[in-house]
Amino acid sequence: MGYRVAVVGATGAVGREMLKTLAERRFPFADVAAVASGRSTGAQVSFGERTLRVQNLEKFDFAGWDIGLFSPGAAVSAVHAPRAAAAGCLVIDNTSQFRMEPDVPLVVPEVNPQALGRIRRGIIANPNCSTIQMVVALKPLHDRFCARRVVVATYQSVSGGGKEAMDELFAHTKASFVHDPTTPQLFTKEIAFNCIPHIDRFMDDGSTKEEWKMAVETRKILDPDIAVIATCVRVPVFIGHGEAVHVEFAKPVTVNEARAALREAPGVAVVDAREDGGYITPLESQGEDAVYVSRIRKDPTASNALAFWCVSDNLRKGAALNAVQIAETLVAQGLLAKRAA
Amino acid sequence: MGYRVAVVGATGAVGREMLKTLAERRFPFADVAAVASGRSTGAQVSFGERTLRVQNLEKFDFAGWDIGLFSPGAAVSAVHAPRAAAAGCLVIDNTSQFRMEPDVPLVVPEVNPQALGRIRRGIIANPNCSTIQMVVALKPLHDRFCARRVVVATYQSVSGGGKEAMDELFAHTKASFVHDPTTPQLFTKEIAFNCIPHIDRFMDDGSTKEEWKMAVETRKILDPDIAVIATCVRVPVFIGHGEAVHVEFAKPVTVNEARAALREAPGVAVVDAREDGGYITPLESQGEDAVYVSRIRKDPTASNALAFWCVSDNLRKGAALNAVQIAETLVAQGLLAKRAA
Repeated sequence: MGYRVAVVGATGAVGREMLKTLAERRFPFADVAAVASGRSTGAQVSFGERTLRVQNLEKFDFAGWDIGLFSPGAAVSAVHAPRAAAAGCLVIDNTSQFRMEPDVPLVVPEVNPQALGRIRRGIIANPNCSTIQMVVALKPLHDRFCARRVVVATYQSVSGGGKEAMDELFAHTKASFVHDPTTPQLFTKEIAFNCIPHIDRFMDDGSTKEEWKMAVETRKILDPDIAVIATCVRVPVFIGHGEAVHVEFAKPVTVNEARAALREAPGVAVVDAREDGGYITPLESQGEDAVYVSRIRKDPTASNALAFWCVSDNLRKGAALNAVQIAETLVAQGLLAKRAA
Repeated sequence: MGYRVAVVGATGAVGREMLKTLAERRFPFADVAAVASGRSTGAQVSFGERTLRVQNLEKFDFAGWDIGLFSPGAAVSAVHAPRAAAAGCLVIDNTSQFRMEPDVPLVVPEVNPQALGRIRRGIIANPNCSTIQMVVALKPLHDRFCARRVVVATYQSVSGGGKEAMDELFAHTKASFVHDPTTPQLFTKEIAFNCIPHIDRFMDDGSTKEEWKMAVETRKILDPDIAVIATCVRVPVFIGHGEAVHVEFAKPVTVNEARAALREAPGVAVVDAREDGGYITPLESQGEDAVYVSRIRKDPTASNALAFWCVSDNLRKGAALNAVQIAETLVAQGLLAKRAA
């Protein structure tokens, strides 16, 4: 007894993490399929102790599959997520394709699980990695103190750009040690020992789409009245996103009240000692489930304002773990009951 | 004919850059001395085509020297800067020791050269690297639109921590490729492929001293009514600091007006194309004099607000170049005339 789960984009950085997360968390599966684009067909991927042969997405029949965990890129999801949904397979899509469509729930289980009651098209969207960790940290603060404006600067690892981006950081760092010339491929500039203030494409107003996502997704998930201005920057880190978050609230707030609210919050771990090493860095978040909050302090430059630092593994809570948690929540809420094998 | 210049801390990352900058800019020197702590005595450092033998600071007699460019660490400056000043050598000190003392001018020549008219103790302070590049970019905007609040997050290179910090990034990056175990020495956590939200010591309010410096130094240099909240983060970059700056102004401002003001400003280079690569990264700022401003855009979350990205070589404009520019300004203003050899 259990659910039949298809992981689509199974050979990518997030797809592999989805398989790992399903196995580790003992998701109640009856069967798991690894699905990817034609050029990966026949490749093998790990699933716990087992190995799965990758199946061709173009030919994959979603009938009889209960859940599709999708992370194949937006253009591919645009075609195949509706096809899976039409076949009765509930899609949890990690791409940006459907996130802002009004009839597609955009869900972080710790923040807005109630949105899962409004599935209309058989598709649930998984938010952007940077948005997820920020809203998990903002939620307990917003509930008590009413967040009105957020100014955030991100320190985003290259794995947000996929496995090839990780390979580029690795190869270019190595080349710089032996003074080999390099040419950026996936990045617009050299990423080794550098920071690039540009993620996703430019919008008409001079922001990037990544910055726009953090604003609109936060409003859709948490509260349409929260204003967010983001600067998103790629840094030479493999896994783990950092965020410098500055929040203005409607209600008075103290550091102790904020810390207490965060300590109780699901998915949040507060590590904040105000001494050498008394905070969490991206490298330490690798392989961990929590959203870590550190450096909580009063911002004296605005009324009712706080600053904090937040870190999480962008492949786990920022992507694969959140998607699996959505599936777990669907099971717990009985929303997948009738699909059970 | 010319000035006799002593560079104190001549073997450090900033000291070497001071010697390089003096030579490159053809500062009108009659003589240049390389001075450092006892353990470096007798070492040799480059100065243009020449080589200088390092002299022992403890025994160095500043009488007859016109200018002392100091970067030996705050505790050393605390002792030897007043000693040099008492001997008639005008000190330009790059350490944090004297910056906030009311009778010591804190100067960025493009921003507040008039402060050089108020030298009381024979000491002029060079601001913190992160502060310098931010106030150079803020100055033309503040003059026209009146900045009231700044929220800034920094991406600071390891060279801000000196030569040993650069060595640690190099060694740890190399070790991580061969899976050698490493232990952080100068940093509190691993710096290779990581970001550390902690620079300088913790203050009682939970901010770090680096964050405090950006707030108080900006007010001293630019305007006591500007409120600054900073989050300062060390990133695995060798040279070049990045800053995500978000500014609220008293007066209405458009992106075009801001860009025009920045384009005219001394020391600023605007590179802002809103397309792939249309911005400057820390790596590209290495060895350059300018403060680069990119990603200028409207911040729709507050009235009269802008966001931008700013980058500069922290060893040059952030330290050595600014100190030499102060010396050049003193010469140009005739404030060093009577000391000429």
